[in-house]
Amino acid sequence: MPLRPVITLTTDFGLSGPYVGVMKGVMLSINPDAVVVDISHEVRPQRAEQAAFLLTSAWPYFPPGSVHLAVVDPGVGTARRALAIQTPAGTFVGPDNGVLSAALPDELRAQAAPPAAAVVLPPGFRAVALTSERYFRRPVSPTFHGRDVFAPVAAHLSLGVPITELGQPVVSITVLPPFRAATLPDGSLTGRVLHIGRFGNLITDVRGDDLPGGDLTVEVAGRKITGLKRTYAEGQGLIALIGSAGYLEVALPGGNAAEALNADIGTPLTVRWGR
Amino acid sequence: MPLRPVITLTTDFGLSGPYVGVMKGVMLSINPDAVVVDISHEVRPQRAEQAAFLLTSAWPYFPPGSVHLAVVDPGVGTARRALAIQTPAGTFVGPDNGVLSAALPDELRAQAAPPAAAVVLPPGFRAVALTSERYFRRPVSPTFHGRDVFAPVAAHLSLGVPITELGQPVVSITVLPPFRAATLPDGSLTGRVLHIGRFGNLITDVRGDDLPGGDLTVEVAGRKITGLKRTYAEGQGLIALIGSAGYLEVALPGGNAAEALNADIGTPLTVRWGR
Amino acid sequence: MPLRPVITLTTDFGLSGPYVGVMKGVMLSINPDAVVVDISHEVRPQRAEQAAFLLTSAWPYFPPGSVHLAVVDPGVGTARRALAIQTPAGTFVGPDNGVLSAALPDELRAQAAPPAAAVVLPPGFRAVALTSERYFRRPVSPTFHGRDVFAPVAAHLSLGVPITELGQPVVSITVLPPFRAATLPDGSLTGRVLHIGRFGNLITDVRGDDLPGGDLTVEVAGRKITGLKRTYAEGQGLIALIGSAGYLEVALPGGNAAEALNADIGTPLTVRWGR
Repeated sequence: MPLRPVITLTTDFGLSGPYVGVMKGVMLSINPDAVVVDISHEVRPQRAEQAAFLLTSAWPYFPPGSVHLAVVDPGVGTARRALAIQTPAGTFVGPDNGVLSAALPDELRAQAAPPAAAVVLPPGFRAVALTSERYFRRPVSPTFHGRDVFAPVAAHLSLGVPITELGQPVVSITVLPPFRAATLPDGSLTGRVLHIGRFGNLITDVRGDDLPGGDLTVEVAGRKITGLKRTYAEGQGLIALIGSAGYLEVALPGGNAAEALNADIGTPLTVRWGR
Repeated sequence: MPLRPVITLTTDFGLSGPYVGVMKGVMLSINPDAVVVDISHEVRPQRAEQAAFLLTSAWPYFPPGSVHLAVVDPGVGTARRALAIQTPAGTFVGPDNGVLSAALPDELRAQAAPPAAAVVLPPGFRAVALTSERYFRRPVSPTFHGRDVFAPVAAHLSLGVPITELGQPVVSITVLPPFRAATLPDGSLTGRVLHIGRFGNLITDVRGDDLPGGDLTVEVAGRKITGLKRTYAEGQGLIALIGSAGYLEVALPGGNAAEALNADIGTPLTVRWGR
Repeated sequence: MPLRPVITLTTDFGLSGPYVGVMKGVMLSINPDAVVVDISHEVRPQRAEQAAFLLTSAWPYFPPGSVHLAVVDPGVGTARRALAIQTPAGTFVGPDNGVLSAALPDELRAQAAPPAAAVVLPPGFRAVALTSERYFRRPVSPTFHGRDVFAPVAAHLSLGVPITELGQPVVSITVLPPFRAATLPDGSLTGRVLHIGRFGNLITDVRGDDLPGGDLTVEVAGRKITGLKRTYAEGQGLIALIGSAGYLEVALPGGNAAEALNADIGTPLTVRWGR
């Protein structure tokens, strides 16, 4: 184990307290050397897909072997499973509602029909249902598994406890389809907004890799945006560009695209070739 | 002293900067090994009671011996005392305005008449007024004791400086009554909202331990909610349940109870038996 | 190098994610012992001056030798230079748009005509343009140098990499004039709001050191405030006082001065002598 193992946190708990601090207290009580890093606590309430997208965008930048904890958990206290998934890049912990799709390759996620489906894990990945209560905080509240199940399990993982100690192996888990706009018969792409980023930028599921060169037109919220810029500093008014995570963004430099377009997470968009 | 002692922070400073970062800089300058954890910086301006409630909900989850710093301090620069209180669980630092009630047992707090009163500390607890200026940052600003008094004192405590070095012993401190709804002659409970939690949940001073089994009706903001749920996933519309800290919550799963009810911190509620 | 070097972060990225977390992941991947402290991520979009002011208010409270990273960068991906500046107090990293003025003494900044100008660094300071790509994360996104240039450079600095390794020396950099209200011929001061602080306090560029004793009147947003208070607890209604960073603040204890006055960053104010 590294001397100062990293645990990342992605939740919809907000920062008004005390939930995030409590989870950190639980983790530091178990592993005083853990370094806990916040990805976001402003995931929209119960939006597992948004959390999965944020974590997908973030985890590749953390040290190999980090523990990534995602707690967006509308089913807390019900029969939904709690999972840990070990991958070549690190270990992911959270409820079995699709949020842990972040851990999995697109090829696997492509097997899932929308909105989500159970798929079998590929070689190199293994998962357990968190059933070993000796790694929990007791008693377990039916409303805050983040504190009593997920945080203590993540901290024990960061100490080097093998995933196989944490519960029973599972062979399939709930995954979301890839974050990737659909291609229509005429070659255009139809996607949607996955996250509202800094400055109100619309971050979409249209991938830069799926765009051929040449002219294109983005249609979103009744507006058309022609051409792709390379940086925020180019052009005036609404622009489209490929953001730092590889997805098409719609931005309004000096303003707020989401407000200007009255767009939000889920707003559809289309990308057509030509002007 | 632990190798990496924990200091928690609860303030009403917000996150727009630079106050919280400055306090962390002061603490790390004194103890580079301290691990500072945010409980909340979004306490309502000058609401010592809300801060005390959040800290009460959080500190039990931190390692024994942690230092808990609470800076909600409308009287900064006036004659109000600055305190450190050593308890069996850790050391608490802040102004003597009730915010440090979080450190104290209910039995003691029950001696305080509303809204607050001075009570004598019980055996096992000791407090000092922070008067040893050699542990301050100098000069001391009359408007930011968080930076110049509380942060440096907390950092020195985390280094193992004995509390008795920090100032003169005090025998009584200002405390708030327990967070506990009153029982009326007919057996119903009358309480109020103490905090608005994640998703707009109303977190109240009605304790789960004070509720007998059987049917009950919660009346709040002109609405009646019958029965207690066990998880957020049960039922539709407004629900009542016992939250993870043991207090009655009113929630609107998939929505925002505070907005739907136009309720806020301080909104009264009543719990009656029967439907 | 200290065992746990501090890196501070000042950005306009907000906390909804994943940008700040990603930068921390990049830094911890390079230096697992770095302690990253947030100053603010709520700088107004692209307001380099506000970021410079916040960083100016914060860095003196951090350990000598800390690395201070400021990423407010509307020109990201264009020809604007990326810089590191070594000073007697620490090392500052960011774009060459004035945000690094925080690192420089007023005497030097006084050479800059508004809104900003290039000035020659004084003895004891040295700067490099970040051109050594081996210290970057590759490939470099044209829209997120925070992740690919600034964070990795800051982490390498915290490991002890000499600044001279990071690129070509530069002799002059872009600086903002000092944060200091102008003196008019009649002796009054004319300044403006630089930041909206906790509780909506207006934090201005009028320095306490520039105020003689005696009566004064602050005129802001059509209102007059007479006299200076020493603490927030004195007086009623709108008050003026010298805040903890040495600048004149306008506050409304128990309320929100910015909302009450409909004032914002950039709102002008005048200070006159007498009532």
